[in-house]
Amino acid sequence: MNIQLALDRMSIQEAIDMARLTESYIDWIEVGTSLIKEFGMASVEAMKREFPHKIIVADVKTFDNAIYEFELCYKAGADVATVMGASPPVTVELCMKTAQTWGRQVMIDLLHTTPVEQAALARYGEAVHCFHVSKDQQEGGGSRLTRPGAYEAASDAPGSVSESQAELRIAAAGGITLDSLPGLFAMKPEVLIVGSAITKAADPTAAARSFQDCIRKLGSR
Amino acid sequence: MNIQLALDRMSIQEAIDMARLTESYIDWIEVGTSLIKEFGMASVEAMKREFPHKIIVADVKTFDNAIYEFELCYKAGADVATVMGASPPVTVELCMKTAQTWGRQVMIDLLHTTPVEQAALARYGEAVHCFHVSKDQQEGGGSRLTRPGAYEAASDAPGSVSESQAELRIAAAGGITLDSLPGLFAMKPEVLIVGSAITKAADPTAAARSFQDCIRKLGSR
Repeated sequence: MNIQLALDRMSIQEAIDMARLTESYIDWIEVGTSLIKEFGMASVEAMKREFPHKIIVADVKTFDNAIYEFELCYKAGADVATVMGASPPVTVELCMKTAQTWGRQVMIDLLHTTPVEQAALARYGEAVHCFHVSKDQQEGGGSRLTRPGAYEAASDAPGSVSESQAELRIAAAGGITLDSLPGLFAMKPEVLIVGSAITKAADPTAAARSFQDCIRKLGSR
Repeated sequence: MNIQLALDRMSIQEAIDMARLTESYIDWIEVGTSLIKEFGMASVEAMKREFPHKIIVADVKTFDNAIYEFELCYKAGADVATVMGASPPVTVELCMKTAQTWGRQVMIDLLHTTPVEQAALARYGEAVHCFHVSKDQQEGGGSRLTRPGAYEAASDAPGSVSESQAELRIAAAGGITLDSLPGLFAMKPEVLIVGSAITKAADPTAAARSFQDCIRKLGSR
């Protein structure tokens, strides 16, 4: 299981500093959507330059213009780029093709998709499928991801991990804390996306180490 | 009726040059999603600085983190910012509130929304509701917007403009050409979004003038 550190609502330098503080305990580094929209591809380039041995995820949230946006990300050094599962099917298809051409990866963000859409997207076995309760859902509705199929108070949340999805590469995101880790572990995620539980901690290094410790303990059960 | 010039897949300087060539014939200037994701808010700042008297639209396609992203756009000088109608309802709601706080505007991009979702969004009477066939749908599926409710070969296109939407502020986008203008006119759009029919024309100034002429002729019928 990999920890993906999500870096949002900060400057590029702050993102670099945060990743530096925690790099021993994290696996993937996410250049958050807010960094991309504020600073452009310079944010992705900076993170790959500073952390060439880490998997860099560009959370570009593509909804259209798939080839152009994914090539921007891959050229900037991203190993993974994200596309919205709620976008037109042709867009997801073009993202998958672009990833294949470049030998890179796709994460499909399932935010605000229906179970029917999720099932249709399950045919992309090589992609990482990200179950996601968004920042706005957390802050505006008090929702967060706790365990597969259980979104506290998220009335429009996606369904549970179905049988057809059981073999997929899964990521989980949305207000994840040390407390919610055990429940999420049942989902067998390949990637656990953690943001503010590390970046807003008084001691981010210690927080990242705690996540790694907790995952190791759960894995050895 | 306003012409919104969509600037995509180019550098900031090319965008400024293109807007300069056509500014006498266009009303709103859209900083395209691709510019924002490639160059960040510097693209929005540059367009507002160069064209302070135009309405600047930041096509930021927000899907989460509504307040943060919309404040980025408004601080950078955008008069209008876009949110995806396919995003969680709380996100659209937060965009509307942020716009109200700032005294600015919201465009809701209806790309890949259902008629039910469109009807729910119709309660935001102060927003511009954008009927949109995406670049990927155009290039990948041969679709384009021709007239209200008629999306050539776009199997997943939104429905027609319903009665409840007839009083809304409407925008139309998606492969619009001089030929498709008359059909779209019936939609009574407040904003007609034109990209490559102007930016890829051999003479962008003449192309923009032709769009303005055509709209004036249709309006005087």
